[in-house]
Amino acid sequence: MTDVEIELTSEITVRLIQHMGSDQMIAAAAKVSTSPEEARALETVESSEGLYGLIRYLAKLRHTSPFEHSAITFYVEAPIFVFREWHRHRIASYSEMSGRYTELLPKFWVPRASRNLIPVPGYKAARPIFGPAPSALRAEVQESLGDSYAHAWETYQSLLAQNIAKEVARACLPVAVFSKMWVTANLHSWLHFLSLRVHDPNAQFVSYPQAEIEQAAVQVEAVLTSLFPLALRAFNETGRSF
Amino acid sequence: MTDVEIELTSEITVRLIQHMGSDQMIAAAAKVSTSPEEARALETVESSEGLYGLIRYLAKLRHTSPFEHSAITFYVEAPIFVFREWHRHRIASYSEMSGRYTELLPKFWVPRASRNLIPVPGYKAARPIFGPAPSALRAEVQESLGDSYAHAWETYQSLLAQNIAKEVARACLPVAVFSKMWVTANLHSWLHFLSLRVHDPNAQFVSYPQAEIEQAAVQVEAVLTSLFPLALRAFNETGRSF
Amino acid sequence: MTDVEIELTSEITVRLIQHMGSDQMIAAAAKVSTSPEEARALETVESSEGLYGLIRYLAKLRHTSPFEHSAITFYVEAPIFVFREWHRHRIASYSEMSGRYTELLPKFWVPRASRNLIPVPGYKAARPIFGPAPSALRAEVQESLGDSYAHAWETYQSLLAQNIAKEVARACLPVAVFSKMWVTANLHSWLHFLSLRVHDPNAQFVSYPQAEIEQAAVQVEAVLTSLFPLALRAFNETGRSF
Amino acid sequence: MTDVEIELTSEITVRLIQHMGSDQMIAAAAKVSTSPEEARALETVESSEGLYGLIRYLAKLRHTSPFEHSAITFYVEAPIFVFREWHRHRIASYSEMSGRYTELLPKFWVPRASRNLIPVPGYKAARPIFGPAPSALRAEVQESLGDSYAHAWETYQSLLAQNIAKEVARACLPVAVFSKMWVTANLHSWLHFLSLRVHDPNAQFVSYPQAEIEQAAVQVEAVLTSLFPLALRAFNETGRSF
Repeated sequence: MTDVEIELTSEITVRLIQHMGSDQMIAAAAKVSTSPEEARALETVESSEGLYGLIRYLAKLRHTSPFEHSAITFYVEAPIFVFREWHRHRIASYSEMSGRYTELLPKFWVPRASRNLIPVPGYKAARPIFGPAPSALRAEVQESLGDSYAHAWETYQSLLAQNIAKEVARACLPVAVFSKMWVTANLHSWLHFLSLRVHDPNAQFVSYPQAEIEQAAVQVEAVLTSLFPLALRAFNETGRSF
Repeated sequence: MTDVEIELTSEITVRLIQHMGSDQMIAAAAKVSTSPEEARALETVESSEGLYGLIRYLAKLRHTSPFEHSAITFYVEAPIFVFREWHRHRIASYSEMSGRYTELLPKFWVPRASRNLIPVPGYKAARPIFGPAPSALRAEVQESLGDSYAHAWETYQSLLAQNIAKEVARACLPVAVFSKMWVTANLHSWLHFLSLRVHDPNAQFVSYPQAEIEQAAVQVEAVLTSLFPLALRAFNETGRSF
Repeated sequence: MTDVEIELTSEITVRLIQHMGSDQMIAAAAKVSTSPEEARALETVESSEGLYGLIRYLAKLRHTSPFEHSAITFYVEAPIFVFREWHRHRIASYSEMSGRYTELLPKFWVPRASRNLIPVPGYKAARPIFGPAPSALRAEVQESLGDSYAHAWETYQSLLAQNIAKEVARACLPVAVFSKMWVTANLHSWLHFLSLRVHDPNAQFVSYPQAEIEQAAVQVEAVLTSLFPLALRAFNETGRSF
Repeated sequence: MTDVEIELTSEITVRLIQHMGSDQMIAAAAKVSTSPEEARALETVESSEGLYGLIRYLAKLRHTSPFEHSAITFYVEAPIFVFREWHRHRIASYSEMSGRYTELLPKFWVPRASRNLIPVPGYKAARPIFGPAPSALRAEVQESLGDSYAHAWETYQSLLAQNIAKEVARACLPVAVFSKMWVTANLHSWLHFLSLRVHDPNAQFVSYPQAEIEQAAVQVEAVLTSLFPLALRAFNETGRSF
């Protein structure tokens, strides 16, 4: 329909910016409650097995405050419809690219090949579940979306070319357009995020997140697992409920 | 370009759903701190003038907790780009129409006639200010946006007709599409919202909100003024900073 | 030891001040997400059985935002050691009697007759459990505490009589002295409070609150049950985890 | 009155445990909104003067989210009446020594020599201000408080000796008894804390904190000034209002 150059992608980027804390710090924070003297001697925190026992105990009894002294900042690139869900998590801090202050980028989301697209039996209004689409239909979806994005981008560019306010011109851009943000939260809050945004049939509360925010959440979980291996193990072994 | 029927509007709807509290309750909550016995006798709360003096004193000294025992719920209809800014206010509760669970409506925002569109001197990246556009240009903006929305809506409908997941089909819809929500916050939080989302050159901190969220905020302020006249007067007379 | 008149009591007072919302409003808020048109017609909300089904579904799937549009304010009189635990619940608003601004009252907590006092097998550092004390010991505890309080009160009064700042004089008062507050939270937050502050061996996460905050929480629960009978039923039937 | 060994002190301890972020990170977070490409190149952040200009601009316009990606944890030792005020700051995480789980320590607060004790003209119920006490009176206050604490401690010890639950025995301990905690908050939240807990006659909103929480807040401010010198300079130069 148009020769505007836009980028179509299914990739969602999650990259660690910075973090504070560790499994040891979770344990040390917990000891402030029960053995304040010990808490000060972080270096004496016991063997990895004793450490895990303590962290698991905290998770099991929902003594969640020790998990709140660790903080993690991620850089995220994702379509706006993912950020819309993400920003509903209120115990977090967000700095996002502004469509008022800067020109958005011609980068748009399309479903990845493995993405289920068709409602299947068991689907309910507030718990949509899907199965695969035939590959011809998949291709058609990609093409329809791509055409629609290109048309919107052309309108955006033509409005900007006429010196129209960015904040008005962007009104035509789809929720599939990519945005960028920094998001910081403490570990308690991140674990709550994972409990809602990663589907796990064995979780105490089984959640049904949209595939694209789950695609981001899985990356968050991988980073957290490398930074806080015992906390994430305890999270998993106590039902992923935080 | 197309004969799809879509609605274009500049109206943003804010309607009171429910509220709890009053100017008297703010005063009564404050008296819990200083004269607990009095606080229990709400009916004895003094003359309107004495009441205003107390509320103004609270606002001036930033004794904000008494304002938190009042709560107000609004029903809002606005384009998604307005909700995107709104949801960054974290001390509030949101229930929003879901593009995953239900089909969105063919209703899209266009700038109202009085909307300034063109950057003017004084404009800065993080403080955009605008002047009026010639009426021919205004008409052209409306038409470009309308065409773009219609094209996107057509794509959305055709994907839904092929039984594609709503949550995927909606990816092409623009941030100008209308959504609906309930939003509840306490009065402290609403006053903070007004301090950032209504431009007042006399405020202690002058803010530069986008015109459309201000259009909603002005309606919020009108309702709050009728429900809590003394609190809103104190808010204004102490610099609109909460 | 002294003839100062002080009041010793085991009563903890919880009284409803105001509330906003109902089971119907929870359902109406939920319908904003899935059937926005219906949500506006609150009066059409279906039979009590259909209503309960919806609320239970929300609780089970942790769709908690509809519970946040209801708010409840309580007046509470309790010893400071209870308020210390209470104020750790951060999703709530507090206005408390101030020991800086006003003179505290000669009212102090003593354990009620049914209060278990002696550690029993199964006791752990972070999960203390107790059994009954012999009645002679119980009487002795009451007397020791009463003497200690009377001594502290006498010091407080003598410092005030010398015109010493209230905020300094109160330093000697025990954490058993009574205070008063208003506390407001939304229903989601109150249910979370109950999940941690009422012990229920059948809960998904069994908590071990101190008896005195539980004594208050049980009263909160009774009021909420009368105001939101279906929400509280759903809370109980889905494991009391919010 | 008694030969129990207790410690009386006027010292309040604030010690940095850990932190995340820097002035550079504040600037980088801000650039996510306006120049996302630049934000990724942290190392290119400009000269200290340009950096300060940006941070001051953020503070002045109340673009506070960039300050939220930095987090700081402190270890604090202070009397309970200080913690009572501190815990009312809800955008923070606390892990405190528990009087339920562990035995409290015989360490109690007394006013330091420079502490004003006597109400002076200008004093109002919700804005108490004080002048110095004669040294004889000061000595008497210290002695009265010390006697009272010793009596309470004796009662506490005798109840523990009879195997009474720690959570019951501690009821007699005064709010002057020391406790310990870890507290973590982001920089935005810490600056808000300072705006309320440090008295500055030149601040936009002049606050009247109790001297002892100010004694802690001043130490917090000194640490933050060394970690985030430009942010604290901007905080001061824009009226200490966050």
